[in-house]
Amino acid sequence: MTDDPPDTTPGRRPGGRTARVRAQVLDAVRAELTESGHEGLTVEGVATRAGVHRATVYRRWRDVGGLLADVIDAAGEMDWQPPDTGSLRGDLTALNHEIQESLVVQPSFAVALMAASYHSAQAARAQTQLWADRYAQCEILVARAAERGELPAAAQHTDARGLLIAATAPLYHQLVLLRADPDPHLPERAARAAVLAAAAGAFSLPRQERENTATS
Amino acid sequence: MTDDPPDTTPGRRPGGRTARVRAQVLDAVRAELTESGHEGLTVEGVATRAGVHRATVYRRWRDVGGLLADVIDAAGEMDWQPPDTGSLRGDLTALNHEIQESLVVQPSFAVALMAASYHSAQAARAQTQLWADRYAQCEILVARAAERGELPAAAQHTDARGLLIAATAPLYHQLVLLRADPDPHLPERAARAAVLAAAAGAFSLPRQERENTATS
Repeated sequence: MTDDPPDTTPGRRPGGRTARVRAQVLDAVRAELTESGHEGLTVEGVATRAGVHRATVYRRWRDVGGLLADVIDAAGEMDWQPPDTGSLRGDLTALNHEIQESLVVQPSFAVALMAASYHSAQAARAQTQLWADRYAQCEILVARAAERGELPAAAQHTDARGLLIAATAPLYHQLVLLRADPDPHLPERAARAAVLAAAAGAFSLPRQERENTATS
Repeated sequence: MTDDPPDTTPGRRPGGRTARVRAQVLDAVRAELTESGHEGLTVEGVATRAGVHRATVYRRWRDVGGLLADVIDAAGEMDWQPPDTGSLRGDLTALNHEIQESLVVQPSFAVALMAASYHSAQAARAQTQLWADRYAQCEILVARAAERGELPAAAQHTDARGLLIAATAPLYHQLVLLRADPDPHLPERAARAAVLAAAAGAFSLPRQERENTATS
């Protein structure tokens, strides 16, 4: 890397040409992905669309897996904030609406990425990391609900991740796996079901697992 | 089709040579899928492994999408019965254990099929139909729970599909989308959360939706 010209050295001058080239290339990856899926994705096609020299793309991203992983990493760098509506049910409903929108928009970049991650181990790892980060960010919803007294007495020891997955998994299941038509009521219903289960103690952790909780 | 020799005519003599050829070919598809995923799947490879003439495979299944769709259809023809343990929580837990096993076995045929269905519209349709059939079969679990009085008064008007998806979606979410390590407690926990939500009325249908329920 030290022999590279400075303007293409990864990590250098983040606001300069390096960042601009990355933005152009990742925009091109997103456009190619949503237009024709990851199967049509090639380093050459991305370089041409981005107006960047092929050698630059190969040097920095190596292959399609590297491009996919970086586009997923870039999604994780976005300044995303979980909703804050004042109630757990409201927060989870808002979150589910966001998820539903990202999955039903045509063409869906989110769905294209999920499909792509089946075919690149590097992209799959990046995707797994992004999911983990997003769920970790959302644990604040459960902590706030506990502070507001919306959860049962055991709430400060709630399995926040389990609750978040219960609330959101039906959306992905219906839209990504079952390929069902979007149900406009599902975001609210899935959120409500998770909150009712939580209120009934479904996600209260047994004493020995408390140290693993991130909600305190 | 009418010009085909009788021994390769689809639908003819189901217990005879046609059925034998289909079994050989579908076994070969399953073996190729689990060994190298759908990306390595070719009509030629399947024909060679099955010991069947390529022309036969092309005539009957046309292409890789046709092979995938038929292997999914064949899964739907299996004499599968939903669990019957005597309680809704027990039934859903048993169902989740079955799902978890099918997803964590290495290599997983179920996961390979899901990945493949992103790349063949015909396979995707077959997969969607299989899911729909399986969930329809499982609605009996909810009907039995209602008969046993395990659900609230509104239970005979429960959204059985919604309840089943709430119970099972976290398994798929964790294992297929998040690619997490299997959690031996998740089958029971996800089942329990869905049952608690159901008991709290999370899946009770408003009066006007009762005619859509399949649980009565």
